[in-house]
Amino acid sequence: MKALTACTKAELAACKQEYEAEYQDFKAQNLKLDMSRGKPAPEQLDLSMPMMDVLTSKDLLQTENGFDCRNYGLIDGIPEAKRMFADILGVSDKEIIICGNSSLNVMFDTVAAAYTHGILGNTPWCQQKDVKFLCPVPGYDRHFSICEWFGIEMINVPLKEDGPDMDLVEKLVSADSSIKGIWCVPQYANPTGCCYSDQVVRRFANLKPKAPDFRIFWDNAYCIHHLVENPPQVLNLMDACKEAGNPNLPYIFASTSKVSFPGSGISMIAGSEENMSDLKKTMSIRTIGYDKINQLRHVRFFHDAAGLRAHMEKHRLIIRPKFEAVINKLNADIRPLGIADWTEPKGGYFISFNSMPGCAKRIVQLCKEAGVTLTGAGATYPYGKDPEDRNIRIAPTYPSVAELTKAMELFCICVKLASVEKLLAE
Amino acid sequence: MKALTACTKAELAACKQEYEAEYQDFKAQNLKLDMSRGKPAPEQLDLSMPMMDVLTSKDLLQTENGFDCRNYGLIDGIPEAKRMFADILGVSDKEIIICGNSSLNVMFDTVAAAYTHGILGNTPWCQQKDVKFLCPVPGYDRHFSICEWFGIEMINVPLKEDGPDMDLVEKLVSADSSIKGIWCVPQYANPTGCCYSDQVVRRFANLKPKAPDFRIFWDNAYCIHHLVENPPQVLNLMDACKEAGNPNLPYIFASTSKVSFPGSGISMIAGSEENMSDLKKTMSIRTIGYDKINQLRHVRFFHDAAGLRAHMEKHRLIIRPKFEAVINKLNADIRPLGIADWTEPKGGYFISFNSMPGCAKRIVQLCKEAGVTLTGAGATYPYGKDPEDRNIRIAPTYPSVAELTKAMELFCICVKLASVEKLLAE
Repeated sequence: MKALTACTKAELAACKQEYEAEYQDFKAQNLKLDMSRGKPAPEQLDLSMPMMDVLTSKDLLQTENGFDCRNYGLIDGIPEAKRMFADILGVSDKEIIICGNSSLNVMFDTVAAAYTHGILGNTPWCQQKDVKFLCPVPGYDRHFSICEWFGIEMINVPLKEDGPDMDLVEKLVSADSSIKGIWCVPQYANPTGCCYSDQVVRRFANLKPKAPDFRIFWDNAYCIHHLVENPPQVLNLMDACKEAGNPNLPYIFASTSKVSFPGSGISMIAGSEENMSDLKKTMSIRTIGYDKINQLRHVRFFHDAAGLRAHMEKHRLIIRPKFEAVINKLNADIRPLGIADWTEPKGGYFISFNSMPGCAKRIVQLCKEAGVTLTGAGATYPYGKDPEDRNIRIAPTYPSVAELTKAMELFCICVKLASVEKLLAE
Repeated sequence: MKALTACTKAELAACKQEYEAEYQDFKAQNLKLDMSRGKPAPEQLDLSMPMMDVLTSKDLLQTENGFDCRNYGLIDGIPEAKRMFADILGVSDKEIIICGNSSLNVMFDTVAAAYTHGILGNTPWCQQKDVKFLCPVPGYDRHFSICEWFGIEMINVPLKEDGPDMDLVEKLVSADSSIKGIWCVPQYANPTGCCYSDQVVRRFANLKPKAPDFRIFWDNAYCIHHLVENPPQVLNLMDACKEAGNPNLPYIFASTSKVSFPGSGISMIAGSEENMSDLKKTMSIRTIGYDKINQLRHVRFFHDAAGLRAHMEKHRLIIRPKFEAVINKLNADIRPLGIADWTEPKGGYFISFNSMPGCAKRIVQLCKEAGVTLTGAGATYPYGKDPEDRNIRIAPTYPSVAELTKAMELFCICVKLASVEKLLAE
């Protein structure tokens, strides 16, 4: 194969004819596959089915210190759940609150509390003239949606292989008091899969924000979601912040949504005791407490951090071949043509694909018309606006390997077709 | 016994001496009992323990239409749960959203959404000069806390035996566009236990609020929590509002917190399709969905509305004797003295007790010093301010009958002591 970029117009026209025929063949197959979200596959969910048996009518539904989980109380979580996830996140029991079924909900509530009531006595964001967030891009659409909902202006920051462009982050944060936060997925970023380097984490911990109510929204969604046997370690932000004398900088989020059951897992927020006690004020108005029986169910099933990690190894064995199928197909069909690049993540839920500029929307549209729904092009950028129209988030986990192989065949044809259309139009 | 109010100062002084001796005896017993909140008793929680067995690893965790409850999706709830609670609340499947573990959380979020984003396109409350709520008193402290949190001014409205003073409600609501809501517990009000009459419900449905974004916050927390065999029926507000041409007036809330497990139940909001679709906008930013496995667990255990009602009959048999123990003791020890009155509710979780003016705080303090914690005096009024210092909320459900009998003995002594102190000081 020859790089498309090196082809003459006549060669391109011939390619286009060939790709169109292949595309029409696919269309005739009436595929129907939704790859728009990062959903675990049924086989992954099956891994947690024994969790349905750990609490029965014969069990005492009590915490280790004898508290009845069936009744009101313990707004910050049962002690054994706090310990297990404090261990995972590298914080102390006093620096974590175990919440309900959705860490997105916790992030929303945290932004909402800052918006309506302010952080640690600072002026509520809704009463400040401008409120801005830095958004490493490409990133997670639901983070951006929260900002958009609250009218928070988003500023793109390039996400590099070792984390956000810290020169830019430091410059912006130290100069502008209207910058109140930054969304980070430090381990296996959504969608690139990159891990923040130690240096990047240290530079985060040593930020000197102009805004006293600036926070790092550290969404550690994939901290134990490895795809490789010797996974990269991301430095403990909480420790680094304490060392730097900035203990209040981070809000750390995580959940078991892709460990046990999405929607029926448990979530958590971690941070300094001062931050936690600040957040508990709004929490105690909002609810009498989260679902402690479900917290207990999780602890009885996973036991401890080691149990959680062992469970994640089973997930790894299921989803690793799916990531490989995607990467292998891209390597075989697209690599030689010189029209795109993509990430090869060591964990997380996504592969980030960059087409030639101006092709992403067209590729997603072509796939959709042939029955495969991808995450919308642009979704990985604030306001849905990918300035170069290049980035596509591939979510390989939900389909079977067979379905995925089929979908990737189609995807590659669509990439080729869109690219050749683009090159012919130039 | 003679009414204390008819005693001479000398007689009162003798009584005081007698009560003080009795009180000191109690203090020496070192009681320790928390009656501050409306918590179900362990025996009530035991009723729902078989719910822990209805979903096991052998079960398909799918909705009736084949949706996998273990994965993301169905933000407005699984169809069978919607049907069951639509049936209980007398609305259609399209007029209900099944939410997470806490209806308080849903109420908070609903007020918060109105505060930050406004209702159905109206100006957000945070951008309006004054925002006020009407609060039937005595009422539920956590409703008041939500208002206080958002700086919403609360206006007391007397709660009568058949509901709030509707002359006053109509007058205020039609005259003042800054009045945005009213908190109602229509069936077995917290704490009086009164039920709103048909006429009151119809007058609610026919309100002509000056504010287009006025809503009735109809907290139907105790709609199936009867204490008597032939419970009173409260008219369907949703139907009445439709008849009156005001379908968007009510937000209706309920939960299974005191049906299955507090903190591990499910909650719901009901209202017009227009209101539900408005609320789903913020919901879809806030979360990817609620805990569907727990929704399924509830449906599998209760089956339908009839199953829920049958389950509540078991609750009734446990808590009815506790309410009787309280009422009987008050009738025996306090009634003849003419120093207080109280409600005899046909359902719900509380008895509302009114002492002589100026005695409630003292009674609660005396009880606390002898080891029995009651809901703080004043808690049933906005800002914790009972203008006459008379109202005490008695929560009989949690203690055993034996504990309760002991606690009520103490309570009656404290009432007598505080009253005689008051009369002597006059």
